[in-house]
Amino acid sequence: MKRSDGRGPADLREVRLQPDFTENPLASVLCELGRTKVLCTVTGEESVPRWLQGKGRGWVTAEYSLLPGSTDRRTEREVSRGRPSGRTQEIQRLIGRSLRSVVDLAGLGERTLWVDCDVLQADGGTRTASITGAYAALALGLQRLAKHGMLERVPLHDGLAAISVGIVDGEALLDLCYEEDARAEVDCNFVGTRGGRLAEVQGTGEGATFSAEQLAQMTSLAMAGIAELTRLQEKLLADAGATGS
Amino acid sequence: MKRSDGRGPADLREVRLQPDFTENPLASVLCELGRTKVLCTVTGEESVPRWLQGKGRGWVTAEYSLLPGSTDRRTEREVSRGRPSGRTQEIQRLIGRSLRSVVDLAGLGERTLWVDCDVLQADGGTRTASITGAYAALALGLQRLAKHGMLERVPLHDGLAAISVGIVDGEALLDLCYEEDARAEVDCNFVGTRGGRLAEVQGTGEGATFSAEQLAQMTSLAMAGIAELTRLQEKLLADAGATGS
Amino acid sequence: MKRSDGRGPADLREVRLQPDFTENPLASVLCELGRTKVLCTVTGEESVPRWLQGKGRGWVTAEYSLLPGSTDRRTEREVSRGRPSGRTQEIQRLIGRSLRSVVDLAGLGERTLWVDCDVLQADGGTRTASITGAYAALALGLQRLAKHGMLERVPLHDGLAAISVGIVDGEALLDLCYEEDARAEVDCNFVGTRGGRLAEVQGTGEGATFSAEQLAQMTSLAMAGIAELTRLQEKLLADAGATGS
Amino acid sequence: MKRSDGRGPADLREVRLQPDFTENPLASVLCELGRTKVLCTVTGEESVPRWLQGKGRGWVTAEYSLLPGSTDRRTEREVSRGRPSGRTQEIQRLIGRSLRSVVDLAGLGERTLWVDCDVLQADGGTRTASITGAYAALALGLQRLAKHGMLERVPLHDGLAAISVGIVDGEALLDLCYEEDARAEVDCNFVGTRGGRLAEVQGTGEGATFSAEQLAQMTSLAMAGIAELTRLQEKLLADAGATGS
Amino acid sequence: MKRSDGRGPADLREVRLQPDFTENPLASVLCELGRTKVLCTVTGEESVPRWLQGKGRGWVTAEYSLLPGSTDRRTEREVSRGRPSGRTQEIQRLIGRSLRSVVDLAGLGERTLWVDCDVLQADGGTRTASITGAYAALALGLQRLAKHGMLERVPLHDGLAAISVGIVDGEALLDLCYEEDARAEVDCNFVGTRGGRLAEVQGTGEGATFSAEQLAQMTSLAMAGIAELTRLQEKLLADAGATGS
Amino acid sequence: MKRSDGRGPADLREVRLQPDFTENPLASVLCELGRTKVLCTVTGEESVPRWLQGKGRGWVTAEYSLLPGSTDRRTEREVSRGRPSGRTQEIQRLIGRSLRSVVDLAGLGERTLWVDCDVLQADGGTRTASITGAYAALALGLQRLAKHGMLERVPLHDGLAAISVGIVDGEALLDLCYEEDARAEVDCNFVGTRGGRLAEVQGTGEGATFSAEQLAQMTSLAMAGIAELTRLQEKLLADAGATGS
Repeated sequence: MKRSDGRGPADLREVRLQPDFTENPLASVLCELGRTKVLCTVTGEESVPRWLQGKGRGWVTAEYSLLPGSTDRRTEREVSRGRPSGRTQEIQRLIGRSLRSVVDLAGLGERTLWVDCDVLQADGGTRTASITGAYAALALGLQRLAKHGMLERVPLHDGLAAISVGIVDGEALLDLCYEEDARAEVDCNFVGTRGGRLAEVQGTGEGATFSAEQLAQMTSLAMAGIAELTRLQEKLLADAGATGS
Repeated sequence: MKRSDGRGPADLREVRLQPDFTENPLASVLCELGRTKVLCTVTGEESVPRWLQGKGRGWVTAEYSLLPGSTDRRTEREVSRGRPSGRTQEIQRLIGRSLRSVVDLAGLGERTLWVDCDVLQADGGTRTASITGAYAALALGLQRLAKHGMLERVPLHDGLAAISVGIVDGEALLDLCYEEDARAEVDCNFVGTRGGRLAEVQGTGEGATFSAEQLAQMTSLAMAGIAELTRLQEKLLADAGATGS
Repeated sequence: MKRSDGRGPADLREVRLQPDFTENPLASVLCELGRTKVLCTVTGEESVPRWLQGKGRGWVTAEYSLLPGSTDRRTEREVSRGRPSGRTQEIQRLIGRSLRSVVDLAGLGERTLWVDCDVLQADGGTRTASITGAYAALALGLQRLAKHGMLERVPLHDGLAAISVGIVDGEALLDLCYEEDARAEVDCNFVGTRGGRLAEVQGTGEGATFSAEQLAQMTSLAMAGIAELTRLQEKLLADAGATGS
Repeated sequence: MKRSDGRGPADLREVRLQPDFTENPLASVLCELGRTKVLCTVTGEESVPRWLQGKGRGWVTAEYSLLPGSTDRRTEREVSRGRPSGRTQEIQRLIGRSLRSVVDLAGLGERTLWVDCDVLQADGGTRTASITGAYAALALGLQRLAKHGMLERVPLHDGLAAISVGIVDGEALLDLCYEEDARAEVDCNFVGTRGGRLAEVQGTGEGATFSAEQLAQMTSLAMAGIAELTRLQEKLLADAGATGS
Repeated sequence: MKRSDGRGPADLREVRLQPDFTENPLASVLCELGRTKVLCTVTGEESVPRWLQGKGRGWVTAEYSLLPGSTDRRTEREVSRGRPSGRTQEIQRLIGRSLRSVVDLAGLGERTLWVDCDVLQADGGTRTASITGAYAALALGLQRLAKHGMLERVPLHDGLAAISVGIVDGEALLDLCYEEDARAEVDCNFVGTRGGRLAEVQGTGEGATFSAEQLAQMTSLAMAGIAELTRLQEKLLADAGATGS
Repeated sequence: MKRSDGRGPADLREVRLQPDFTENPLASVLCELGRTKVLCTVTGEESVPRWLQGKGRGWVTAEYSLLPGSTDRRTEREVSRGRPSGRTQEIQRLIGRSLRSVVDLAGLGERTLWVDCDVLQADGGTRTASITGAYAALALGLQRLAKHGMLERVPLHDGLAAISVGIVDGEALLDLCYEEDARAEVDCNFVGTRGGRLAEVQGTGEGATFSAEQLAQMTSLAMAGIAELTRLQEKLLADAGATGS
């Protein structure tokens, strides 16, 4: 099967991670995965949620939103209905949990880091691009806090990225664009670490079901994609460290 | 490792499916998984959501709630905050998607079935017990509609059940109770069919990560548990059919 | 006039009070009044609302809800609209006020007791069955707190139960079932004490009006019914005390 | 016992009903009961709620609100919390039900009348003053619709007014002002008709209980007060009819 | 051009400021501007918003509402939709900012004054009548606090009033009534001080635009109207001071 | 007085209008005014709000939002509180009214254009940059609809831009950056047309007041700035037309 953009089944779309796209937050990264563009910003707050106060640990939390003009057909702002949709809440819970799986919260001190993932343009894979960009921005921000002496060391114990795999016409394909996603029988999102382990797996049959073998095959494809994404993140972080930004 | 209640790693807790616990809905099943008790009721409505009107297809949707007194410490009613929590929305989206993966929506006609899962007592596994009970109640309800001539045939193409698997102290255990769940490093929920396929996988490291091998091992344990659960569901449905209820 | 179920005008439906239907709360009672089933649970919290802090007194509050599948036609969850209906608020204010009329709040200490009344099956009289069951669960819970030394004595100065009376085809009938309630010209709910006094009266003409004589007649019927209900509550409490549960 | 303002136990406060206090609505009445002032306005809408469409009947509904500056201590606007309080909903449901008990809804045609009761100054008895003023405004509005040929006849089958009775220091007192209400052991609100019948009774022990005899005694006091109020309403309506307004 | 009520282009409608229309608040003024009637009440609270605590300064805030029956066609209560409309928020922000521009907040001490503007009858110019009445009520309240020794001096450094100017059929007209407002091409609201300065200008083309010259001309008209309004306010305050109320 | 960035009192910051920053909407423009960056997107919908149906006219509406990471200190998402703030509503009402003052709504047909202004980076003047960018995006979108034959002609009767003027230390300054805005005594926003007329004026004393002369002086400064901005918009539109995009 030919993919609409000529990629092989195990190929990622073109990935770009642009640091400091905006300058007010502690760190920001514009993450592009093909035509999908997500602005990930990290801001700090010298306090923690009430239930964590006085425990000497920090917190990392994430929010996600589609800009109204990011999609082909305008997406209504969630504030118009008064609350985030189930989909949005599911995604922001996923991003937050994923990031916390590699952060040493005790090493963060009593401090909260807010990671905001705002989708400027959507073409499939917005939740995985959000996680990949969010980790890069978070690591960049923590590197800066450490450099300015606000942290003793960067409190991360692994790198983190995410990618989707789907089954389209019976074949497992890495990193679905919107047009492929709309045709997929099965859609799985994997979050994994630089060290080759999994943090989250969410697989769902879209009106279809899948076998244990297919799950294993999708897992392999995803882990190779995640390895490639974490290499790009490391390069960005090394460059930023070298230039002292 | 000994489990707190003496079970082996691959053992389910005691399962009971009690039909017609309440009599006003089309069908109801009280699903008990150890001490966890979920009342699943199915009610019908002779219309479909707006976006589905005029397409000759039906819809199945689910809602989930913890009764305030179902937990050790009282759970605040969600209406008090004005909206369902992210956790609740995630669970009800999961239940609905899972059920729809085995329902023939065209065979349902322009009709909506509401499946309500209200947790009377919670001891771990409430979302999987909800799915297992919800399928039983749904199938019972559809069997009754068919019997009364409102459907030509029961529009289901497979059976469906769900179970959790976790990694506790490095070991994969089937069907965690609350005390085990609180100690688990990894928590996965599997939804599968009587035919041995998967409808949903949701695996999450609770501050830890897991390997592809562990995912495969958990999948095997789950599929055996699901097979056992679907046998119990079939028995209930056959008994109901035999007694003509 | 014959009543649909053969009862005489002054007869209650069959009443059952089942303690410990669920085990996580401090106390629970399943109250059945004919086909109406309400699960009443009591949970404690070692604090009081802000406006009561530092006064050495406790608080008792109640919440009420119909499960979606409890009614013939599915009842929408109130969280879906974001707030409790006027009817629900009226009922939970009534239950709370009624219970507080027999509780010695000073004897409770700075502690809140939450009483949750969740209707599993509705066939008329859900608010009065809620009060009758709520008092039984509350008294059972307080008896347990006293037994475990958390209270010096059970801080109750009377027993409490509730019942409806209606005028149907010109005749006053005790304890209306749903079918009678729908036909009633006048509907009154009475909350009274074991000692033969009234705590609350709510009478309403459903498109009709009533005379002072009819009010007096309905009051008499209700007080006899309440006396019978409080005897059943006392038996349950005495049994629980005897078995030490 | 002397009442704070020198009244006897069965005396109403001074009552004034001022028609056309504002001119934009179909009818308005400023109802004063001692220092309590409620502006009651009636506006019409040539449609009915969805559930009543096509049945050839009309609807009467009521809303109630305390102006923020109406009370000694400022009352927060309900819109600030996003929803009417339980107390407000209880009162507006009571006003609406009471009015509908004397309106011939079929005679109204497919038309809704909105009755708004806005309390400008509160000194006890705001809900009963609202009902008394609301009926006067409603009757005035219906008289005008009939006069202008929009109704064949005034679709009212009785007059309606309301009054409170309380037990203070063991004695039943008619029409409590705020200072008496705050000290009352029992507080009852009665809604009755010009013809001497009851439409609503709401009695509540404020931490106390009451006997059936006390209920009968309060009922007598209330019915005398209601008779007096309906005479004042009839005078206002006759004057308005005579002057052709 | 003749105005519908015979006024010249620079004429105000008849203005009345009636103090103490209600007696529970610290001060109240009923402000009438032609047929427009706004009840302005001032209540105090011995605390300030959280962000102002401990700074030794006070706060003045305003709320605005149309009573449902104040308009020709009934205005829905904002609580029914759960939140104030954009228009309401704009107006109450305007009233609050305007008042604060003449109040010495440090001289007020750690105290909040709430100014409530409730429109009883609307005929154009409700926001400007609200400001004019709100200032009068606020000044009256502050005068009373000073008189009772709760303030050393009246913490106001200027008087304040507001008026609208519009362009109708090309001509600038002072103080538009509703019928003129509906036909206006440009609508400006000016808030100014007794001392002849401006506190707020809000000009908007209603589907049309306007020149800098027209803005200057409207400003002149408004400032003359504001001068007249502040003279009436001063008279009211002097009279109240003289009678010691 | 020297401005912090060396500008003269009548100088704009550097302005950039970048078309097609994102590609999914009908048109998008990234408007930069110094460090302030606003992404303005235009999307169409082939329907109009209910109150406009069947009148053969279109509608233009605007929404505005600050991204959480756009400000120095993180801005909470409005969905978290369930509703847009008063400030947001005021701004989006202003943008919408301004745009509609130059659009020929009849020429638009029964179609709604949504203009979304999302602030990516905030440094003062976000509402005026939003209007300037929104007009450019709207004109670009209408030009495209006309080019594709969906409109007979571009339904605009003038160009539109906006700018702020403030009084800082007694001096009127054009186009305040955040640091100047925070120190300003008076803050005015002007919306004007390419033809040299005004569409909106909003002037407010921030705890101070201003004279009619100062209003006139600020108006002059603003109109010169607006002329310059409309020239830049015309260039962008001409370039886009020339390249056929």
